Amino acid sequence: MGSAMGVLLDIAGVLYEGDRPIPGAVDAVRRLRGSGLAVRYLTNSTRRPKRRIVERLRSLGFPVDPAEILTPAEAACDWLRREGYAPHLLIHPDLEEDFMDLPKSDRIAVVVGDAGPCFSYERMNAAFRELERGAPFLALAINRVFKDRDGKLSLDAGAFVKALEYSSGTPALLLGKPSRDFFVAGARSMGCALGDVTMIGDDAESDVSGAIAAGVRAAIHVQTGKYRAGDETQHDHRPSALARDIAAAVDLLVETD
Amino acid sequence: MGSAMGVLLDIAGVLYEGDRPIPGAVDAVRRLRGSGLAVRYLTNSTRRPKRRIVERLRSLGFPVDPAEILTPAEAACDWLRREGYAPHLLIHPDLEEDFMDLPKSDRIAVVVGDAGPCFSYERMNAAFRELERGAPFLALAINRVFKDRDGKLSLDAGAFVKALEYSSGTPALLLGKPSRDFFVAGARSMGCALGDVTMIGDDAESDVSGAIAAGVRAAIHVQTGKYRAGDETQHDHRPSALARDIAAAVDLLVETD
Repeated sequence: MGSAMGVLLDIAGVLYEGDRPIPGAVDAVRRLRGSGLAVRYLTNSTRRPKRRIVERLRSLGFPVDPAEILTPAEAACDWLRREGYAPHLLIHPDLEEDFMDLPKSDRIAVVVGDAGPCFSYERMNAAFRELERGAPFLALAINRVFKDRDGKLSLDAGAFVKALEYSSGTPALLLGKPSRDFFVAGARSMGCALGDVTMIGDDAESDVSGAIAAGVRAAIHVQTGKYRAGDETQHDHRPSALARDIAAAVDLLVETD
Repeated sequence: MGSAMGVLLDIAGVLYEGDRPIPGAVDAVRRLRGSGLAVRYLTNSTRRPKRRIVERLRSLGFPVDPAEILTPAEAACDWLRREGYAPHLLIHPDLEEDFMDLPKSDRIAVVVGDAGPCFSYERMNAAFRELERGAPFLALAINRVFKDRDGKLSLDAGAFVKALEYSSGTPALLLGKPSRDFFVAGARSMGCALGDVTMIGDDAESDVSGAIAAGVRAAIHVQTGKYRAGDETQHDHRPSALARDIAAAVDLLVETD
């Protein structure tokens, strides 16, 4: 597919599944980086802090610099600083460290991520009541499902965002994929325009259809992670290419020896 | 407003708030029943079984026969029996007794009500996984909010129904208000057509706009319970009349002495 200048990689389901790298993924990322293409990691994972995303990728054999990873939590912190709000957090406790360094403020914005088992009625209702009082509503992600450790799909953050939007009548501002701003930030950090970037991911909606709608050069849908046959036909935009896995996707972008 | 043949009354927020009858409500219901109009109670409450709804109304001074109360749980049981499904229940434990007498079946339908504090990620995800396996999805109610014991609004069943619809892609079949079938069942139990019925409620969407869309003769919006100024302007249909409370609403329907 030649001439992309930068590549944005989704992480979970593309580079690893559960506790293991996807076969061929470490070598594929090495080939990508060795080819002269810029590479950034654009994740919607909001269950662990950036520090642990970096640790995990390194422990699985992916060489990665923290500055190469863009997370919805960072995008939210940028928004909160810029607009002068303190967060009311409805997120996984493990992610809270990414929100530790914000300046104090009396103005509250609700921030919802994938709290997983930490979603409870009490926590949902407390966030709802802040929205009722007029707090802005930031959604780290609106993914419908993720592939859980038992191999089955489970409810992702989007379910809980939609619940709160419905009852409060407050639309959420999305920070993660498929927010165009998030793709733009990924491109910009490589010194590219969106039109020079290829996105590789396993989520038909957030990674593929959303990226194409945002204006990337191409979006490659890998058939790993949460991929289910036919997913690519369910949303507004179909992938530029469907690839067996990231190794096959990289073959499309980089000349093999 | 003369010549209604039957009246459907919402219960919580119309007849009582918290532990007390709304001032004048007991006398208003007595006047209504004494006037020769048929009266039925059409509730979306799914936190307690019918047995306890009856007990509560009686303890507050409202004379009521169980056959006069229509609940979404009964409508769901009718559906399950008719279609031959056993329920996977995501409801308040107190409501489970209303689902005890169903015949066994290997075919599972997911039933969601207002589980309140009993909503948890695990229970939501278990229901989601049944939907992923193709189970039909019954929603007892889709109310956005209810007036909680502390006087503030809290998340109602609709939030959790929308969460599951979003992630599963399975639309819910609504059993309670504003399902037209539920209003029709209320009218039919009085031997009336919908066009002969007046609905009285405090929920702008479920009780008022929904009833008018279904085809009732009139819907009176009472300014008690969850009512907030301006609610009546937020949905497709405005009320036939806005009344201070049920006593004022009954004044519109029954000649005073």
